[in-house]
Amino acid sequence: MAATRLDVNCDMGEGFGNWRMADDAALLPLVTTANLACGFHAGDPLIMMETVAAARAAGVAVGAHPGLPDLAGFGRRVMALSAAELHACFAYQIGALQAFLRLHDMPLNHVKPHGAMFHVLRDPAMAEAALDAIAGAAPGAAVYWLAGEVFAERAVARGFRVVTEAYPDLDYAEDGMLLVERRKRAVEPALIEARITEILTRGTLAARGGAVLPMAVESVCIHSDGPNVLEVLAAVRRAAKACGTALACATRRG
Amino acid sequence: MAATRLDVNCDMGEGFGNWRMADDAALLPLVTTANLACGFHAGDPLIMMETVAAARAAGVAVGAHPGLPDLAGFGRRVMALSAAELHACFAYQIGALQAFLRLHDMPLNHVKPHGAMFHVLRDPAMAEAALDAIAGAAPGAAVYWLAGEVFAERAVARGFRVVTEAYPDLDYAEDGMLLVERRKRAVEPALIEARITEILTRGTLAARGGAVLPMAVESVCIHSDGPNVLEVLAAVRRAAKACGTALACATRRG
Amino acid sequence: MAATRLDVNCDMGEGFGNWRMADDAALLPLVTTANLACGFHAGDPLIMMETVAAARAAGVAVGAHPGLPDLAGFGRRVMALSAAELHACFAYQIGALQAFLRLHDMPLNHVKPHGAMFHVLRDPAMAEAALDAIAGAAPGAAVYWLAGEVFAERAVARGFRVVTEAYPDLDYAEDGMLLVERRKRAVEPALIEARITEILTRGTLAARGGAVLPMAVESVCIHSDGPNVLEVLAAVRRAAKACGTALACATRRG
Amino acid sequence: MAATRLDVNCDMGEGFGNWRMADDAALLPLVTTANLACGFHAGDPLIMMETVAAARAAGVAVGAHPGLPDLAGFGRRVMALSAAELHACFAYQIGALQAFLRLHDMPLNHVKPHGAMFHVLRDPAMAEAALDAIAGAAPGAAVYWLAGEVFAERAVARGFRVVTEAYPDLDYAEDGMLLVERRKRAVEPALIEARITEILTRGTLAARGGAVLPMAVESVCIHSDGPNVLEVLAAVRRAAKACGTALACATRRG
Repeated sequence: MAATRLDVNCDMGEGFGNWRMADDAALLPLVTTANLACGFHAGDPLIMMETVAAARAAGVAVGAHPGLPDLAGFGRRVMALSAAELHACFAYQIGALQAFLRLHDMPLNHVKPHGAMFHVLRDPAMAEAALDAIAGAAPGAAVYWLAGEVFAERAVARGFRVVTEAYPDLDYAEDGMLLVERRKRAVEPALIEARITEILTRGTLAARGGAVLPMAVESVCIHSDGPNVLEVLAAVRRAAKACGTALACATRRG
Repeated sequence: MAATRLDVNCDMGEGFGNWRMADDAALLPLVTTANLACGFHAGDPLIMMETVAAARAAGVAVGAHPGLPDLAGFGRRVMALSAAELHACFAYQIGALQAFLRLHDMPLNHVKPHGAMFHVLRDPAMAEAALDAIAGAAPGAAVYWLAGEVFAERAVARGFRVVTEAYPDLDYAEDGMLLVERRKRAVEPALIEARITEILTRGTLAARGGAVLPMAVESVCIHSDGPNVLEVLAAVRRAAKACGTALACATRRG
Repeated sequence: MAATRLDVNCDMGEGFGNWRMADDAALLPLVTTANLACGFHAGDPLIMMETVAAARAAGVAVGAHPGLPDLAGFGRRVMALSAAELHACFAYQIGALQAFLRLHDMPLNHVKPHGAMFHVLRDPAMAEAALDAIAGAAPGAAVYWLAGEVFAERAVARGFRVVTEAYPDLDYAEDGMLLVERRKRAVEPALIEARITEILTRGTLAARGGAVLPMAVESVCIHSDGPNVLEVLAAVRRAAKACGTALACATRRG
Repeated sequence: MAATRLDVNCDMGEGFGNWRMADDAALLPLVTTANLACGFHAGDPLIMMETVAAARAAGVAVGAHPGLPDLAGFGRRVMALSAAELHACFAYQIGALQAFLRLHDMPLNHVKPHGAMFHVLRDPAMAEAALDAIAGAAPGAAVYWLAGEVFAERAVARGFRVVTEAYPDLDYAEDGMLLVERRKRAVEPALIEARITEILTRGTLAARGGAVLPMAVESVCIHSDGPNVLEVLAAVRRAAKACGTALACATRRG
């Protein structure tokens, strides 16, 4: 008996000025949920305005993808911000995105931190500072994050709607840690199909070395900068269809 | 018969990182309305968060002071943005500030563009783009601007609440143009008192050369980076008191 | 009787952080001269360090491509800098690039301003400020520019070695002005071959409408962000070979 | 028998755009050596150009004060750069400053890293990357640093001229570590005089708790952002005069 619904989220709007990171226009029709860069690690006001309009046209839910204030490092270099600075950086980026959503009467669907925030948010004080910002600036927004991480646990404890996610286009180590490479490589569509099927039918995912990880998630995250991302998304859709699973944003009302 | 109310607005939060432009803590108790920098010409997330909290504590209304994306030029160098870029820059900065206001359940009182926006907004297409952003991102917010300027006229035509303002710490030319110097100089408190009294009792202001300009404004703008700004604000308060005029934000409800 | 030598210059290193604008590694073997972004409109320290090393390996001469301080606008939005600011911005960018050249004992071959500098440098005071910076920071460096422009004329008057250039992948209007589009379109290789042959054999170029412009230049500039830039460069090389013209940097010693 | 010479170094040019951190014009006549911000943690091209000219007029030696690429954090937040990024950031900033020095035929006197570089450079691989950049971009420049630190030891091992320094306006812990506070406090001039005298006559400095640290240094660093920095510098000069010690840059030729 497979899961009835699957959310497919994807980072978007990660260009800056004249630079583009991915072909967002091609990706939008294939996903349910977009995490939008908000100007700190990527994204600028014009790109944000255009990407929100495109997401609305494609019927895709939009969340904030706040990053560290490090454009040159794409938000992937750990920085020692204070908790107050982190709070302020989250609120600022969330608010900026909300202005563009308001132009279209769209709610902020969720917040999913970007890049080296993964490391920063393992500190409980920093996780709380980020959640303070989300609670204050975007009451009602969900949090997308990995199950078991401090940030997800604190969010649950504070009553946030937390959508857990898997990364089928990355490998997992036996202990459940993601194996991240600096540059994304192409992934075999057949492997993606197998992983999605496993997630949807058994709620597990095979790690390197044969370990089987619990992976009963609501969402899968696909990286928009993978070299064959369109093939990967097509594989996700084929596997979901074969399982009888509908693709839909996990938190969309109605 | 003097005016019964006068709004006193002042630019604030114009530091960045470890730099400060003015002693905001000393100024806040003396004004009714603060125009907050939003991170493009000045201001950073932490400064914005702290300045909003301080304004709330002082009972001062807060508006956005969006600038051109030019930190090194303090937003005072004209830049050739497209109308879409301008729209997006206004929405982004307004939204960012709103997130900090939401933490305190404060409304965005108004929008007052900064620096070289004065020149940019004399182009009707640019004025409309900025007003599009304000209407979309901050419905209900007022606009502070100089009477007679295209931006103010378009705002009135679109139904915005427009608060007109005078600059008693600057000189006016005979044609009504402001004479702006790169670095603010000290202004005699007696001159400030005389000008405030003239504005409140006759609705005029004396320009250089003896011309008398109509100046029936609701607000006066005092520059926080003037070398004797505290004396200037004390003079404003003395003159208003002598006229029996209450100092209050022009748009504050209740 | 065709020209014996032709310089082919190309903008390079115009990425930032994780973003890339063109495939510099594929272009370097096909050009003689690279104009390197210096961090203001594009380029960051790591990209500059890597691009200089790649240019040296490919035997390509390296010059500075200083831009306006506007990363989000890719240096293509006119900004009202003062002459002193422009002087300082040129010196800063030139010096930064020289540090990377010094690691490889390479001279700074030339300076070629980027983007909206074209408009800024039509003001004689600004042209002189830029030339002051080049003379002071990089004595001996050449200047690449369009014949007839104020900046080129002032450079000649001050004794700079000025290399004039044509833009065979753009169209010229009858009055000699370049017709620039926001996004580069593909250009027929046969058209490029014809234009290069005309430049090399007759020292002219056909403008739209049939006018024949004098175009006895030493260098041609090919835009690295054209969609078929590799085809364009192959066409340049074919035409030069057919004319018996050697491709070589115009200013390289020895 | 007191030391015959003492170098007094001070951070300068740490403004940005319209912001200033200290009154450099008042400080320059009182020091022998200036560490100039290079645009990453503070400093912009115009400020650098003006500060180099002022230092030359005052007869003060100028070195580079490279920082992390973090303007909002004033270079005081640790960031996880790669060794290649650090190398490139050092070379870029050093080269930029050299362009302004070249306008005045001044050599780059030294390099002294700023802020959180202190922590970054405790990693030997990072120390070597920074020294690679200095050796390549500024051969002959000295390094100013604290004795005993990895960065100073590696510099000595590679043949750099290393000038060791003390911080008489800070307190030292018993183990020799500096006790740094976020905001500098005023220091009693009498305490400064006593410390300078101790350094010059005995080559030691009293730490908190009574421990006596070896402190036979060639230079003392005075923080330009201390609230009574002019008094502190006057105290340094009085103590040196009383000891018969001449104030002079440690590395100045001639």
